[in-house]
Amino acid sequence: MSHEPYDIGPARPRLDALAKACGTELFSADSYPPGLLWAGARRCGVPHGILRGVDASAARALPGVHAVLTREDVPGSNRQGIVHKDMPVLCGTRVRHCGDPVALVVAESRDVLRKALALIHVDIEPRQALADMDAALAPDAPLIHESHGSNILLAAEIHKGNAEEALAQCDVILEETYFTPAQAHAFLETENGLARLDEDGILHLTVSTQAPFRDRFEIGHALGIEPWKIRVHSPFLGGGFGGKDGATVQCLLGLAALRLPGRTIKMWWDREESFLAGYKRHAARMHYRLGAMNDGTLRSLVCHLWYDTGAYAHLGGEIMELGMEHAAGPYRVDHMDCRGLCVYTNNPVAGAFRGFGVAQASLAFEGMMDRLADRLGRDRLDLRRQNALRRGDRNCAGVTLTSSVGLDECLRRVQGHELWTTRHAWKKDAPAFTRRGVGVAAVFNGMGYGRGLADNAIAKIELTPDGRFVIYSGVPDMGQGNASTFAQIAGEMLCQDAGRLEVIQPDTERSHPSGSASAGRTTYTFGQALIKACEMMTTKLVRRAALALMIDEPGGFTLVPGAVRHLPTGKELPLTVMGAMLPRDDRVCVAEYLMPVSREVPDTGKDFPLGFPHLIFPFAAHLVRVEIDELTGLVRVCDYLAATDGGRVLNPQNFHQQIEGAVAQGLGFALMEGFGTENARITTPDLSTYLIPTSLDLPDTQSVAVETLEHSGPFGMKGVGEVGMNGPLPAVASALSDALGAHIVRAPVTPAMILELLASRGAQA
Amino acid sequence: MSHEPYDIGPARPRLDALAKACGTELFSADSYPPGLLWAGARRCGVPHGILRGVDASAARALPGVHAVLTREDVPGSNRQGIVHKDMPVLCGTRVRHCGDPVALVVAESRDVLRKALALIHVDIEPRQALADMDAALAPDAPLIHESHGSNILLAAEIHKGNAEEALAQCDVILEETYFTPAQAHAFLETENGLARLDEDGILHLTVSTQAPFRDRFEIGHALGIEPWKIRVHSPFLGGGFGGKDGATVQCLLGLAALRLPGRTIKMWWDREESFLAGYKRHAARMHYRLGAMNDGTLRSLVCHLWYDTGAYAHLGGEIMELGMEHAAGPYRVDHMDCRGLCVYTNNPVAGAFRGFGVAQASLAFEGMMDRLADRLGRDRLDLRRQNALRRGDRNCAGVTLTSSVGLDECLRRVQGHELWTTRHAWKKDAPAFTRRGVGVAAVFNGMGYGRGLADNAIAKIELTPDGRFVIYSGVPDMGQGNASTFAQIAGEMLCQDAGRLEVIQPDTERSHPSGSASAGRTTYTFGQALIKACEMMTTKLVRRAALALMIDEPGGFTLVPGAVRHLPTGKELPLTVMGAMLPRDDRVCVAEYLMPVSREVPDTGKDFPLGFPHLIFPFAAHLVRVEIDELTGLVRVCDYLAATDGGRVLNPQNFHQQIEGAVAQGLGFALMEGFGTENARITTPDLSTYLIPTSLDLPDTQSVAVETLEHSGPFGMKGVGEVGMNGPLPAVASALSDALGAHIVRAPVTPAMILELLASRGAQA
Repeated sequence: MSHEPYDIGPARPRLDALAKACGTELFSADSYPPGLLWAGARRCGVPHGILRGVDASAARALPGVHAVLTREDVPGSNRQGIVHKDMPVLCGTRVRHCGDPVALVVAESRDVLRKALALIHVDIEPRQALADMDAALAPDAPLIHESHGSNILLAAEIHKGNAEEALAQCDVILEETYFTPAQAHAFLETENGLARLDEDGILHLTVSTQAPFRDRFEIGHALGIEPWKIRVHSPFLGGGFGGKDGATVQCLLGLAALRLPGRTIKMWWDREESFLAGYKRHAARMHYRLGAMNDGTLRSLVCHLWYDTGAYAHLGGEIMELGMEHAAGPYRVDHMDCRGLCVYTNNPVAGAFRGFGVAQASLAFEGMMDRLADRLGRDRLDLRRQNALRRGDRNCAGVTLTSSVGLDECLRRVQGHELWTTRHAWKKDAPAFTRRGVGVAAVFNGMGYGRGLADNAIAKIELTPDGRFVIYSGVPDMGQGNASTFAQIAGEMLCQDAGRLEVIQPDTERSHPSGSASAGRTTYTFGQALIKACEMMTTKLVRRAALALMIDEPGGFTLVPGAVRHLPTGKELPLTVMGAMLPRDDRVCVAEYLMPVSREVPDTGKDFPLGFPHLIFPFAAHLVRVEIDELTGLVRVCDYLAATDGGRVLNPQNFHQQIEGAVAQGLGFALMEGFGTENARITTPDLSTYLIPTSLDLPDTQSVAVETLEHSGPFGMKGVGEVGMNGPLPAVASALSDALGAHIVRAPVTPAMILELLASRGAQA
Repeated sequence: MSHEPYDIGPARPRLDALAKACGTELFSADSYPPGLLWAGARRCGVPHGILRGVDASAARALPGVHAVLTREDVPGSNRQGIVHKDMPVLCGTRVRHCGDPVALVVAESRDVLRKALALIHVDIEPRQALADMDAALAPDAPLIHESHGSNILLAAEIHKGNAEEALAQCDVILEETYFTPAQAHAFLETENGLARLDEDGILHLTVSTQAPFRDRFEIGHALGIEPWKIRVHSPFLGGGFGGKDGATVQCLLGLAALRLPGRTIKMWWDREESFLAGYKRHAARMHYRLGAMNDGTLRSLVCHLWYDTGAYAHLGGEIMELGMEHAAGPYRVDHMDCRGLCVYTNNPVAGAFRGFGVAQASLAFEGMMDRLADRLGRDRLDLRRQNALRRGDRNCAGVTLTSSVGLDECLRRVQGHELWTTRHAWKKDAPAFTRRGVGVAAVFNGMGYGRGLADNAIAKIELTPDGRFVIYSGVPDMGQGNASTFAQIAGEMLCQDAGRLEVIQPDTERSHPSGSASAGRTTYTFGQALIKACEMMTTKLVRRAALALMIDEPGGFTLVPGAVRHLPTGKELPLTVMGAMLPRDDRVCVAEYLMPVSREVPDTGKDFPLGFPHLIFPFAAHLVRVEIDELTGLVRVCDYLAATDGGRVLNPQNFHQQIEGAVAQGLGFALMEGFGTENARITTPDLSTYLIPTSLDLPDTQSVAVETLEHSGPFGMKGVGEVGMNGPLPAVASALSDALGAHIVRAPVTPAMILELLASRGAQA
């Protein structure tokens, strides 16, 4: 066993790397306990309609079918949803999108399941499909949720200063409308889980989920059982990105398990079902009017954002809020009017996705910055530096930035980088029939839940009887590496090597509620709780060692790998002895952390119900160099640079992996991933029609850490799970406009669009 | 269920009162699990000798005998002892007092056990019995413990100033020698317990013990098993007083259980065995030379203390140390030379006993004060007030009293009491053939373990799934009521009523090491730990409630009976819901407290190994009025007043009960309880020969609380378990000398001694 502490700062190999590389780490999808049954949902396949009946007689008669359940079999409220409980577990009278489930089948095998699902006959009277927000907002549009009384899920406003008046006084006023598409999370491991009702009436679930603790309440409410009679275990996830934040398989699995006590039920959506029934990024439309002075000072923004939440709310309102909170970008803008409408349609359900509403708005505010720079004849990067938020400024939502702000330093790093300084020469060197462009973007992303919803974590650490430390994580690891960082934090605090540290993935029975793995909050919030728990553990161990060594004051003790040492005498007590000696409850420390929230009351026209505003922001400046094939319209991303302020970096490897992954996903969003619908029916139902970038489509991203110190965070860090997603689209748009001389207002920028732009530019020229 | 919080201050009924009054509270002795076997020891019956052999063949042959074990059957070190491991579990080659065990029998029933014990033939070659300290200290005396190299267990010295020189300069020098006897604890529930070795190799014991956590180490060392393979449970004790602090039945029971795995073994000493084999108070001899000035100022004390520890050490050295630390009484004395000798003899083993060495010295230092007052023609109480320690003074051990000191106030209360102010008239009113006397005494008693041995407690409190609080006590309740006070402390801190509070008696598996129930430390040390645990619990519950109620700052919350309430909104979360909601480890809080120790290095000629000096002292002033029957020599205690400074009183009922019990035990010590030996053989083997006071022998003690504030203690308290024991003997001696005109130097003061004194006084007159 190595005796080098698994500490903070250097790049430490991830604790989960070997097991994942060898395939011994079991994901939820890898679990096939003996005797399991398979569950699957019959999806309605119709975007909007009245459900007249479900005929399951043929399916029920099929040998190997254990149960076919419909709405009448759901014992509870039948309602799911994180904030708005508007999504049925099984539809009874109404279907609102093609993926709505109308029956649940439990069968002996996957084959029988497929056959049984095909045998279910569903009788639906179709109604007008509201295929876009305009249709849904039309005065005579049918209501998708009658009880809600409107197709508007949330109408919200942010007012800062006097935007219209200030706009009128500006030297320059620019106006534009931007469009971003729905996007699929396209995680490796699609939605899945297992459930079993045990003899004590406890419902056990193992689910690929980002929010095991919240799941208990979702399931409990939907199925009418006490949340504490539900145990949810969340192993490592094969990706999440927001798509596993909220109920996917949970309630359906629970329902099946309640019906078949003692049996283990597995449900695993294939890619097509994941695309059909899973959550998507909200498609958005954004209308911007930006006013500035001739010297480049931003002065006023009036904007209107529309987010298409599809058939159900999920976190639609909160996602739009976050877009609005970031609407003016990471810049000083004294006046802003921002109005938002989050609209129900019959499109697939939109929900949480890395970049959470901000990835959309980033195209708009950065597009406006490019236009302004071009209009004023200014260097695009320079104009951004001039207006960049600094510590102490108030952002466009009215929040005074007392947390760390490293944006200008991010921009300065990009400005000094040779990818930027050599851009003119590089562009001139473009081969024949090739255009080159260099783009930049400055982005940010509020971290954590924001005000109104406690962003809290409870960490538990145990000294085992054999002298190791086990960290009970309360927040899942979707692959981003937080579990390993938790071990590093404990290793740092307790001065122990990796061999003595183990992280248990969330399990509502063993670990403690710590919110969801989302919002860039995971390591920040749980890490702070864990630091406190480790401090408690250290104090405890020192005091217990002092007792055992008959030293009556605890000064002079320290933890060393494998032992507690009394420095003045050199006496040591091995952790193995302490572990054996201490009673169970004295080997466990539990500590909590609550993220600070802004106590300013922003000047909003309308209070948001939850999650507004944010206090702490990671920042980033992205640079991209692209090459356009004038003959095919294909865009090649040649170079990518991301300078990110995530506070202090705990493990450079994990940090850069996060950035690289987000950039890849962002480049897909910019250039390839338009999740298509036509009349509310999906036109990209699988990975042959919905393309995501492969490693061949991507450059080696250069990631630069700009290490500010975020005092409130663990060892000075901020979360970088989200911010990297927001840069690629505006940076690519900027590079393309640099290459084409035409501004990009719509994503993804497909070869067809490029060819069209080239043609119109050619016509102009 | 009452909704009145079970809080601190008012007299609250003891939580254990009803169950004890109804007989439903099960003591260790009450436990008769099915299939139990009985164990008993064959005692040698010889004060000193060489063990030639043990013939157990007849006993082994007796039907119903499961095992007869001798020294060879003991797998470990065979040594017991808290500090000095000098006491064998079973003697092999040597016996050192009549109670030494030479064989252990396990039998089907108590009857068979008795018969089998009688059938064991023990072959002992007698050696000279060292029946008193002088014999043991004689140059040619045989060594009781050869490996120790001397019959002196501990020789110790305390030097403060320059005592001999100062003495020579005094106006008055007084000299006297005092004697106090051994005393039996005479608890209701004699030593007993049960043991069983389970299938996992865990040795389970239920024992009437004051130190369950230390017991594990005693048993482990003696029997060669890991302490953490031993689980000790300590139910309520039917009295302890120090006599159950240290191994009694533990190792013998453990030995029997190891031999007979899976069987439950019970051992219960009857009164005679308890007198024979149990611990006693040390008999002591004390030679004092006290010097004072004519104005009454004490100036120098030179004294020599001898403590007879009997055959084994137990805590003999530490007990003598405490006597020495208190040798000059609670007075300012600038110079002191105190030498102590703790001596091995072949008498019954002496050990811890309420008053722990100080009950002996109190006779001497208070006797000297009376003599000095008489010599100077001063009022006895007045002289004590003149010299009484005050906060900021250094005591005779050289410790600066920064803790609370209420002695003068105790004396003032006595001085103003009508039992004192009317004393002259009362004495004059004595009937014929009756003499009356009024005595006072001022005493103190160091609290806790003192320096060198961490005086620590670890409290655990749990919110149960059904919304109650369970306190896991780490220190036994011998009857003094600490368990109930723990509930009160938790009730106070958590604002809960008695119905929601439960105290679990110590169990090394469920509660945490908190030292022994002794040294007046129990409520002080564990109470402080419990307060911290309750603070943690409150913080935790408030934060969890804030989460559940979606309130993102924990301000404004409070606990109310049965719930957590958010005061600004009036929202409540019932504890039943919180209990159901929280995971196991989040319902438990563990906190530690370490008693402060003096950091002064006293000017001692020789460092004590452990437990010296003390920092915190309860004080008391006692007054007694006695009546002497001149014809019979019988002394009647007419009135008793105890003014006690124990810091703030947590529950007046418990406080006064402690004082009343100690006064009763002290009056027995003063007037009746001489534990007799003749040539090291007990002459008072049972309660017909060893008399203790009954309620008819005792007055109604008036107990007055002098409530200083001890800042370091829980809600300002100090422990009063010991101090009350120290007053009655010197107060009675003072009253008798007041009545007789002759000073008392020996206890107990029997009618024969009184008649003798009357006769000699009569002769003088």
